[in-house]
Amino acid sequence: MINIPKGTKDVLPAEAYKWHYVEKTVREVAAAYCASEIRTPTFEHTELFLRGVGGTTDIVNKEMYTFDDKGGRSMTLKPEGTAGVARAFIERSLYADAQPTKMYYITPVFRYEKPQSGRLREHHQFGVEFYGSASPRADVEVISLLDAVYKRLGITGLKLHINSIGCRECRKTYNDALKAYFGAHIGEMCDTCRERLDKNPLRILDCKESGCRKIIADAPVVLDYLCDDCRRHHEEVCAGLDVIGIEYSVDPRIVRGLDYYTRTVFEFISEDIGAQGTVGGGGRYDHLLEEIGGKYCPAVGFGSGIERIIMTMEALGVPFGERPRPCVYVAPVGEDDKTEATRIAAKLRSAGVSCETDLTDRGFKAQMKYANKIAARYLVAVGESERASGVYQVKNMDEGTTEAVTADALSEYFANRTEKNV
Amino acid sequence: MINIPKGTKDVLPAEAYKWHYVEKTVREVAAAYCASEIRTPTFEHTELFLRGVGGTTDIVNKEMYTFDDKGGRSMTLKPEGTAGVARAFIERSLYADAQPTKMYYITPVFRYEKPQSGRLREHHQFGVEFYGSASPRADVEVISLLDAVYKRLGITGLKLHINSIGCRECRKTYNDALKAYFGAHIGEMCDTCRERLDKNPLRILDCKESGCRKIIADAPVVLDYLCDDCRRHHEEVCAGLDVIGIEYSVDPRIVRGLDYYTRTVFEFISEDIGAQGTVGGGGRYDHLLEEIGGKYCPAVGFGSGIERIIMTMEALGVPFGERPRPCVYVAPVGEDDKTEATRIAAKLRSAGVSCETDLTDRGFKAQMKYANKIAARYLVAVGESERASGVYQVKNMDEGTTEAVTADALSEYFANRTEKNV
Repeated sequence: MINIPKGTKDVLPAEAYKWHYVEKTVREVAAAYCASEIRTPTFEHTELFLRGVGGTTDIVNKEMYTFDDKGGRSMTLKPEGTAGVARAFIERSLYADAQPTKMYYITPVFRYEKPQSGRLREHHQFGVEFYGSASPRADVEVISLLDAVYKRLGITGLKLHINSIGCRECRKTYNDALKAYFGAHIGEMCDTCRERLDKNPLRILDCKESGCRKIIADAPVVLDYLCDDCRRHHEEVCAGLDVIGIEYSVDPRIVRGLDYYTRTVFEFISEDIGAQGTVGGGGRYDHLLEEIGGKYCPAVGFGSGIERIIMTMEALGVPFGERPRPCVYVAPVGEDDKTEATRIAAKLRSAGVSCETDLTDRGFKAQMKYANKIAARYLVAVGESERASGVYQVKNMDEGTTEAVTADALSEYFANRTEKNV
Repeated sequence: MINIPKGTKDVLPAEAYKWHYVEKTVREVAAAYCASEIRTPTFEHTELFLRGVGGTTDIVNKEMYTFDDKGGRSMTLKPEGTAGVARAFIERSLYADAQPTKMYYITPVFRYEKPQSGRLREHHQFGVEFYGSASPRADVEVISLLDAVYKRLGITGLKLHINSIGCRECRKTYNDALKAYFGAHIGEMCDTCRERLDKNPLRILDCKESGCRKIIADAPVVLDYLCDDCRRHHEEVCAGLDVIGIEYSVDPRIVRGLDYYTRTVFEFISEDIGAQGTVGGGGRYDHLLEEIGGKYCPAVGFGSGIERIIMTMEALGVPFGERPRPCVYVAPVGEDDKTEATRIAAKLRSAGVSCETDLTDRGFKAQMKYANKIAARYLVAVGESERASGVYQVKNMDEGTTEAVTADALSEYFANRTEKNV
């Protein structure tokens, strides 16, 4: 027997409706914000992620699915959704359209996680990328879009944490302050922190080691080192959130795991799924396009894991809408009735009615049982007398009632009674 | 600058609605047939495709994206959709449910095609897999489902070609007949045909070389070698298609490129997209589960390329529905009006109204131009007097008319006028 690759998951027919519900909500909210979908390839040239995600991140250093194609080019399965969109934005000249360009994506992402981490090696994200606006109002819209997705899905108990990590200029000053502070304590800190001290001291703030956390608790706070422009930007983001009634707390410890952020960073944190509390997050990355060979273009966005959303909803007991039920089961009584049953089923289906009939030569009794099992709303028996008279007894399976309907009227009868939720 | 990998494509925001239209149609038709979606990982153990797709196919021999993961296991990006579903069906014990199990998928697939072939290295397919029914009525349903998708999309000019390649028993007899026939002509045939003569002579029928095609034209025809059961199955499929009014021609040259088929095979062929005429096809594969380590379970299904469908629709000039337009543009007149514009936009969006406002500090005139450019249906100006009175002039951008609406009534006014097509 051949098994599924470790760290990957099937979505089975019985659970697909949960995904549909989440994805439909994402699409509806994105549409309300006039964001359009963009789809980029599953793999990209490895170089894109080295430059776009950043050489000091765990993703690039340890977790990428990188391989040489048959032409000897290094390719990598996308470990996140932002870099591919940025590449497309430059390559397809989307910057030449009237700005902003508001995009969303729903995509699998691939990271070679340790099996014990409980994380998947292929998981799914939706995300939003707004290009072409440096305004704090764009940050507010992006945050509010994600907030709206969570609220519409019924996910309660999420706390929005926001921070600013400044621009290149104020980050230089802050990095110096961090180096000075951590340099004085580095003997007590873990190996990863030591490595990060020179390369990217900001990322020390991400360390989860309890020894390190105590030292981190008293580290200098980035908000104290912002330049005037960055401070004003941060204040306007906060004011904008106040205006539209989104609650948040300013949290100087939020720095995000990717190198490309500037100014605003944010996370929605749940207390319902344990230690891995971040359900979604993002921020501003005004210099990403330059990193991968484009011109300066301000940008802000987020990513949110779909498996984590579904897990959170399940933990909260929030409904995913109803699993769709077949509208009608068409039951041929005997062998001679099968042709007519096929004809009726075909007609109902072409009228958009969800319809099932026999494909395994069950007897009539067994078909009744099967119709119950698949939770069909109605049952139509096709026997000799029905075929002769052209009148069918429609049984309502929930209520046990029956109603006589002529052959010609069946499509219309059920078209008004079938579910439209696909 | 970093480019997109050769043979892959972005779907840009301006064209995503075409994909949505095709995918929505697939989901709606699948729902009418009570098929539920299944999603399997992007990569699988390489072994699965070696055994499930077959060692004599071009796909497995030349076209797979195979790589070792960090644990040294050989993985392959899925080159088609059927094997992963079969693996899931066994591994997750879906055979233990009441049968049939009707599933559909929409997935990227990966084949290392030669650049000059015009084919994509990552393209997208939807497909259907019905497990658990050996009945010819299942074949008819599967064919009719695909026919319904094409018809609903408005794709005309497709011809359905069907054939039976028999079961293992009758194929043995037929293979012998092919070997005898081609053996007598093999000196005049191409290298690929020579290789196939011993391994899988059936696949010689697929050869596109003009020299070989002449010889193939007079080769023995599989329908003449069917056993009684296979012949009856084939006749019942044809009769079933007649009953529901689907036109077809029996075409003994249809053998499909994959090893796993038994009995029914079919293709929908278009004359509108040139030599690469097959838009979609499939067949029955009763022994696939056994090949990959499961128990015998009859199955029938198809796959259809989404890029090819979109290409065909474009060639035919068939509409993809309308590209969604923003419902409202909310235009702040001056700097002081931006906060109120943000508040109004947020309120409209949370009522599900697609709404855009200024994010790039355009002047009022430039905003009017922008609202036109993005084809907003309505425009609401937010100025000092509007804020004071709480009454807004709603301009219908298509008709040039205006209507006064109070702040409180805006959401309801537009909720009835926004598009729901996501």
